[in-house]
Amino acid sequence: MSNVQKRMKELGVSLPTAPAPVAAYLPAVRVGDLVFVSGQIPFDGGRLVASGPVPSEVVVQDATRAARQCVLNALAVLAGELQGNLDRVRRIVRLGVFVASDPGFTDQPTIANGASELLVEIFGDAGRHARAAVGSVALPLGATVEVEMVAQVE
Amino acid sequence: MSNVQKRMKELGVSLPTAPAPVAAYLPAVRVGDLVFVSGQIPFDGGRLVASGPVPSEVVVQDATRAARQCVLNALAVLAGELQGNLDRVRRIVRLGVFVASDPGFTDQPTIANGASELLVEIFGDAGRHARAAVGSVALPLGATVEVEMVAQVE
Amino acid sequence: MSNVQKRMKELGVSLPTAPAPVAAYLPAVRVGDLVFVSGQIPFDGGRLVASGPVPSEVVVQDATRAARQCVLNALAVLAGELQGNLDRVRRIVRLGVFVASDPGFTDQPTIANGASELLVEIFGDAGRHARAAVGSVALPLGATVEVEMVAQVE
Repeated sequence: MSNVQKRMKELGVSLPTAPAPVAAYLPAVRVGDLVFVSGQIPFDGGRLVASGPVPSEVVVQDATRAARQCVLNALAVLAGELQGNLDRVRRIVRLGVFVASDPGFTDQPTIANGASELLVEIFGDAGRHARAAVGSVALPLGATVEVEMVAQVE
Repeated sequence: MSNVQKRMKELGVSLPTAPAPVAAYLPAVRVGDLVFVSGQIPFDGGRLVASGPVPSEVVVQDATRAARQCVLNALAVLAGELQGNLDRVRRIVRLGVFVASDPGFTDQPTIANGASELLVEIFGDAGRHARAAVGSVALPLGATVEVEMVAQVE
Repeated sequence: MSNVQKRMKELGVSLPTAPAPVAAYLPAVRVGDLVFVSGQIPFDGGRLVASGPVPSEVVVQDATRAARQCVLNALAVLAGELQGNLDRVRRIVRLGVFVASDPGFTDQPTIANGASELLVEIFGDAGRHARAAVGSVALPLGATVEVEMVAQVE
């Protein structure tokens, strides 16, 4: 079992099946030692764990869990690029976090932390990344959160 | 005639004149073998082919065509970085697709497919890319879609 | 005094203290010769210089100044990656500019120019960059503008 797998087991999380792209694109593209992972929405077992904007339809706590689920899906995609071995991740470089938001909702950072903190829990310092978190009027399929990722790999 | 030009001719599409940036930035910047193309809006002959949000002002089908026009403009810019020779494109790496959306509109993927599918038609497997598609409350000059691109080139 | 410092002094601008991230991520990550700077909001001395959407709560001119402040914060972060020496910047590669916008507001480019023009004033041609500017329904802490940056460095 890889170190990352052990750490995920300790944390009580596991990789889902990588979601298929919603449309005509790839889950990820590698160029040199960078992998660009497509925007992931919070699918779990084929359904979204949160849909609609914050806070009118989803509370912050549930949206934060959804951000965490987006990262698990991004890692499943990344693992697919690395023959399943996430120990080959050298660095999480950047996250783009889009939060479906009502006008006036400004706590996107708390929700994006659901994504960021899980990465640090799993990868330690290699999981610390640059980030842009913003509000979005509406996201694909009604998702509450969408997360895209750039990672440096071996 | 280059292979990409032949393919575009078969598809009945042609490169527009690369739009000048709306403001104080460049159409594209190359760093190493990556080209970052600035966000493109659906200009065609100096006017936008679609403006306003989906669906209140623009139907999905028209927005999808607008996304396709954004890609043609992005390719015109990319060609400008490559002495006009799109055969030097090794890979389309990533698209960022922003769709002007009313609250509750969640079919950004269909619209973004207008962009993604054209790239695959033109470049084949080299046109398959990572993607983030999101809704935006409003876009520059009222555009219905904005597409930015990262490409790997020779 | 470095060349960039001299130029900033001539322009009457100075680097603020780099803002700490609002949450569980890093101000910037370097990978190869690229530095990814996290999304910066217009903090100045610990408070936002503009908050709320354009134009209902903030006029274009003030939002433009806020975009400029975001860039100063991004440069402060970048300087932190370069032992304080911005002469080691080879190129500003890309800006992502998010403008908190009311529905129907479409002059994001003018506001983003506050960011773009300052970079050209400071770095000359090396400050010319690719850019994506879009509207956002709401931004972290109520900020009017958020700017993220990719730079190539020595």
